[in-house]
Amino acid sequence: MAKAAVLGYGVVGSGTVELFYKNAEAIRKRTGQKDLDIKYILDIREFPDSPYKDKFTKNFDDILNDDEVSIVAEVMGGVHPAYDFVKAALEKGKSCVTSNKEMVAQKGAELLKIAKEHNCNFMFEASTGGAIPIIRPLHQCLAANDITAVAGILNGTTNFILTKMFSENMAFDDALALAQKLGYAEKNPAADVEGLDACRKICILSSLIYGKHVYPDYIHTEGITAITKADVEYAEVWGGKVKLIGSVKKCANGKILPMVRPAFVCNDMQLSNISDVFNGITVYGDGFDEVMFYGRGAGKLPTASAVLGDVIDCARLSGTSVSQTWEDSENADFIEDYKNDTVAMYVRTSGADKAQIEKLFGNVEYLVKDNAPEGEIAFITPELVEKDFDEKLSALNGEVLGKIRVLNLR
Amino acid sequence: MAKAAVLGYGVVGSGTVELFYKNAEAIRKRTGQKDLDIKYILDIREFPDSPYKDKFTKNFDDILNDDEVSIVAEVMGGVHPAYDFVKAALEKGKSCVTSNKEMVAQKGAELLKIAKEHNCNFMFEASTGGAIPIIRPLHQCLAANDITAVAGILNGTTNFILTKMFSENMAFDDALALAQKLGYAEKNPAADVEGLDACRKICILSSLIYGKHVYPDYIHTEGITAITKADVEYAEVWGGKVKLIGSVKKCANGKILPMVRPAFVCNDMQLSNISDVFNGITVYGDGFDEVMFYGRGAGKLPTASAVLGDVIDCARLSGTSVSQTWEDSENADFIEDYKNDTVAMYVRTSGADKAQIEKLFGNVEYLVKDNAPEGEIAFITPELVEKDFDEKLSALNGEVLGKIRVLNLR
Repeated sequence: MAKAAVLGYGVVGSGTVELFYKNAEAIRKRTGQKDLDIKYILDIREFPDSPYKDKFTKNFDDILNDDEVSIVAEVMGGVHPAYDFVKAALEKGKSCVTSNKEMVAQKGAELLKIAKEHNCNFMFEASTGGAIPIIRPLHQCLAANDITAVAGILNGTTNFILTKMFSENMAFDDALALAQKLGYAEKNPAADVEGLDACRKICILSSLIYGKHVYPDYIHTEGITAITKADVEYAEVWGGKVKLIGSVKKCANGKILPMVRPAFVCNDMQLSNISDVFNGITVYGDGFDEVMFYGRGAGKLPTASAVLGDVIDCARLSGTSVSQTWEDSENADFIEDYKNDTVAMYVRTSGADKAQIEKLFGNVEYLVKDNAPEGEIAFITPELVEKDFDEKLSALNGEVLGKIRVLNLR
Repeated sequence: MAKAAVLGYGVVGSGTVELFYKNAEAIRKRTGQKDLDIKYILDIREFPDSPYKDKFTKNFDDILNDDEVSIVAEVMGGVHPAYDFVKAALEKGKSCVTSNKEMVAQKGAELLKIAKEHNCNFMFEASTGGAIPIIRPLHQCLAANDITAVAGILNGTTNFILTKMFSENMAFDDALALAQKLGYAEKNPAADVEGLDACRKICILSSLIYGKHVYPDYIHTEGITAITKADVEYAEVWGGKVKLIGSVKKCANGKILPMVRPAFVCNDMQLSNISDVFNGITVYGDGFDEVMFYGRGAGKLPTASAVLGDVIDCARLSGTSVSQTWEDSENADFIEDYKNDTVAMYVRTSGADKAQIEKLFGNVEYLVKDNAPEGEIAFITPELVEKDFDEKLSALNGEVLGKIRVLNLR
């Protein structure tokens, strides 16, 4: 009776089918549904040599109109036609799970509402943090808490690049080329290196903790393309690393501040220990204080693991609707302007003057490294409102070569 | 209609009540049950000044016989009468949640069976890892995987002691005294320092991944009382730390090997970064590869956070029985003898002879530290079956001052 369909037979889709059949016996035992099976795989391509060739269809209506199919796993990516398929399936009361962060970031509120209206579930553990359990822990295990902040390394490609820049002293372009060679980065790496992928994940986490849909264009997003070897070296001198951090925190005025940007992360924070393609997500709340989740944020089987975890839950919970919901939002009036936030800043300058730096910023911490070019001065400012920082910085004589925020979530 | 009772108003019980009322509005919204409330608190003591004084009862039957109470949170600790109360409540179809690792380790299989028979839930997220989500991720998010190993720092007290020995060069006794002074260790610290607390948690995790109840006496358990400053220093020379590790792994012969013991953990492993009273749990599986969970493993509000996460789930899932089950076990025939496991060993000796060491163990790695006493030799053996190691070690001339296994989970 519990039959599933997998939409898309790319990397994640084929991994989902592979992992399901590898552990099918145990999965059926865990769900208590002895006949749980994948009945259809939707793909426009032909797979004549696949052991699952009898399951393929090119017509979504085969799935939509088959009442035996109660669970749909969408792993195609992109908003259309993924959204159209998921919406149609939910409207028929079929529970849907997805790894598609773009779709959830754009259409999450609407799809959650449709699921509730049709007494089925819409789940997306795989959309954020890959194999790492984060959506369900936020929604269930930590649900008694007021979640005050979430901060994570949410993109493996950029973390790989920054790790290589740190540990092997590679330049950004060389590290990116290596990531591309190893298959970690796309030929067009913009979605990763410009922070868009992390932004979509922060949309999802922000919506979850605030209960209101946070769209990608509400979020100030900076990528890592401006980060240089010198910046990474100064971070080491300071006692930390440069990481691309997606975060959201609740502000005293009741708004939330989601943001994606490279940040100086001090070695005392668990996030500084997340290397290579791994992801890590730290959550802060009033009861539990701090928890951190670490694991593979992407890849065929890790993502499949999360997709199937949701499939198993949908099978177990068939006939009930327990997935989280959040309201849609009309505008960004509940989002704090990041320029109002208080931050300490790392600044790298050339031709500046220490007396003026101290006059502008007060008690700065100078960072000194070997082989710095003549006239280069790097420092960390005390904490100040970012707007004020901008004003002071524009008054500084000399050239600003780089600036990076110091991560502070409390 | 959804009313809860809290059994025990000690540290965790009072935290549970406090956190519930702090976030009651949000909790009620998340469960969709507007009237979710704590109706009773069971304690034999008087709390005349408590804001909740009207909720107290000394008679468990008040709770048992009140049909409005559908959720019971047991946070008393100890097997009796906690077990008797939980059993009686489950038999009445009331879902129960607990932070009581001793009870789950002794009675888990039986209580899970009773819950299934009475269409209610028995949950124990708080019993292992405190605030850290681990039971639910294993049972849900990672449920599509074959879990091959779990290893964790599961006891905050011993981790605090070992951290102080490492970072402040304290002796074991001094670090223990400090832990007692700060309230991290009991006056009688045996349950912590001898590994019994970690053992109970590994019982629970082992039962969960194997599907069969693992009782405490099935598990080889060693504590940290024999660890010296010298051992911790040699671990640093080697490139790691000494940690009390509770672990379970699946063996090639189909058995499992649960164990609790101090281990050399190399700095490349995430577990080596878990300091002070924090806990960390690493899980290995075929699809997701590796995930790690980090957070506060004990304490008033962190434990309350986990208790209430389960209470919320019980409220949401009222009328269904979705909590995990595992079979009871008659004997330990599915537990591998740890002496058959393959390990590398750290050995500290006095008056031994390098030629004989190399003849016995082959290509050992010598560890050299400043200020080592005359005649002390420390080394790491190649990997070998522990039985064979014992035989070789007994043939060694000179005194064995210490030996610690090197952690290896693959």
